[in-house]
Amino acid sequence: MRVGELSRHTGVPVPTIKYYLREGLLPAGELTCPNQAQYGERHVRRLKLVRALLDVGGLSIAAARDVLGALDSPEVSLHATLGIAQRAIAPARGDAVEATAPAETDDPAWREAVGAANAWVAAHGWQVREDAPARTSLARLIRTLHELGHPDLLDLLDEYATAAERLAAAELALVGRRPDPDGRVEGAVLGTVLGDALLATLRRLAQEDASRRTFTGPTVSAI
Amino acid sequence: MRVGELSRHTGVPVPTIKYYLREGLLPAGELTCPNQAQYGERHVRRLKLVRALLDVGGLSIAAARDVLGALDSPEVSLHATLGIAQRAIAPARGDAVEATAPAETDDPAWREAVGAANAWVAAHGWQVREDAPARTSLARLIRTLHELGHPDLLDLLDEYATAAERLAAAELALVGRRPDPDGRVEGAVLGTVLGDALLATLRRLAQEDASRRTFTGPTVSAI
Repeated sequence: MRVGELSRHTGVPVPTIKYYLREGLLPAGELTCPNQAQYGERHVRRLKLVRALLDVGGLSIAAARDVLGALDSPEVSLHATLGIAQRAIAPARGDAVEATAPAETDDPAWREAVGAANAWVAAHGWQVREDAPARTSLARLIRTLHELGHPDLLDLLDEYATAAERLAAAELALVGRRPDPDGRVEGAVLGTVLGDALLATLRRLAQEDASRRTFTGPTVSAI
Repeated sequence: MRVGELSRHTGVPVPTIKYYLREGLLPAGELTCPNQAQYGERHVRRLKLVRALLDVGGLSIAAARDVLGALDSPEVSLHATLGIAQRAIAPARGDAVEATAPAETDDPAWREAVGAANAWVAAHGWQVREDAPARTSLARLIRTLHELGHPDLLDLLDEYATAAERLAAAELALVGRRPDPDGRVEGAVLGTVLGDALLATLRRLAQEDASRRTFTGPTVSAI
């Protein structure tokens, strides 16, 4: 099919498709004439994957290119591909604090939070690289909750950790049952990238329901 | 203290403080001379809360103003305040798809995904408003996984839902135990806003650990 048909087929505008081609997110079509390329089913599929990574996963163009590059490289192990996907995900919100604390490293409260985060990871027996960005995110969240006078909210860390552990195990088990290696890798990456959105979405639904049950009703009109 | 001292005390630059004052995120100081305002401990505290909402929670200025306004209004119920906080959170990534599907409502696959999302919420007995944005996010995630040929990943929905339910219950229980209403409301809002970041962070840590255990090791060099 020509690019116009590819566009109609996927709902992605032609200029956007050309942009993805230039950015290397979509492989070039097969040139039939000097100015005309033909696209096939694999382009349709790849285009849908690109939109999922960008729109649903919130990845930048550069991050999506990294993830797709890892998916396309059979020599990159699944564990390494997952690492690339983790790093590519739009940073967990805690990472945005960068600009806040000018002398974060010199601040004793910050050093204490980093120590608490690392001790917590170690106590859970989680083997995580020393330079994993999530360690810093955790330290920032710990410091923020202390600073704001809500350290008791950190009592929820273990509950959150149990949930995170169970979800990670369930995801990898499901993906590991797939027969073909390509499907395993793509499934693990999608689980990583789309899983945040899925979890945030279900958390909003569960919260609304729990809040309604807890805080409204015939006996309590307003708290 | 004067604005310079407030800045030194909190690490927030003076121009940023003035910006927050103009935007109504921070209440005005007490005017001692025509051009000089005095700030107190409540300004220090509020400034930290503003930074947490903006930087760690990823809220926009307008969204932070909405949340702070609800926190400052004792007549707004806790349930309603939580609703405002939920809507204020930078949209779950699934919400970003807006631009993708031009005729989303006419598309049978989209209608099917919306039906599946609503049926799923109903089957879980979750009481959630009909117009909750999270319903649309869930439909988008369902459609995306079907389109990409990974519908089996939706088998994880129930596992995710159990986690979301348990976390929502634990959060509200912890916050509900607080003696003062103000602390309850602020705690519930912080749990909502910072909880996404916390969960995403712990999920990354748990995933890295689980992936290492599952996909690396002496017998498997590369999958």
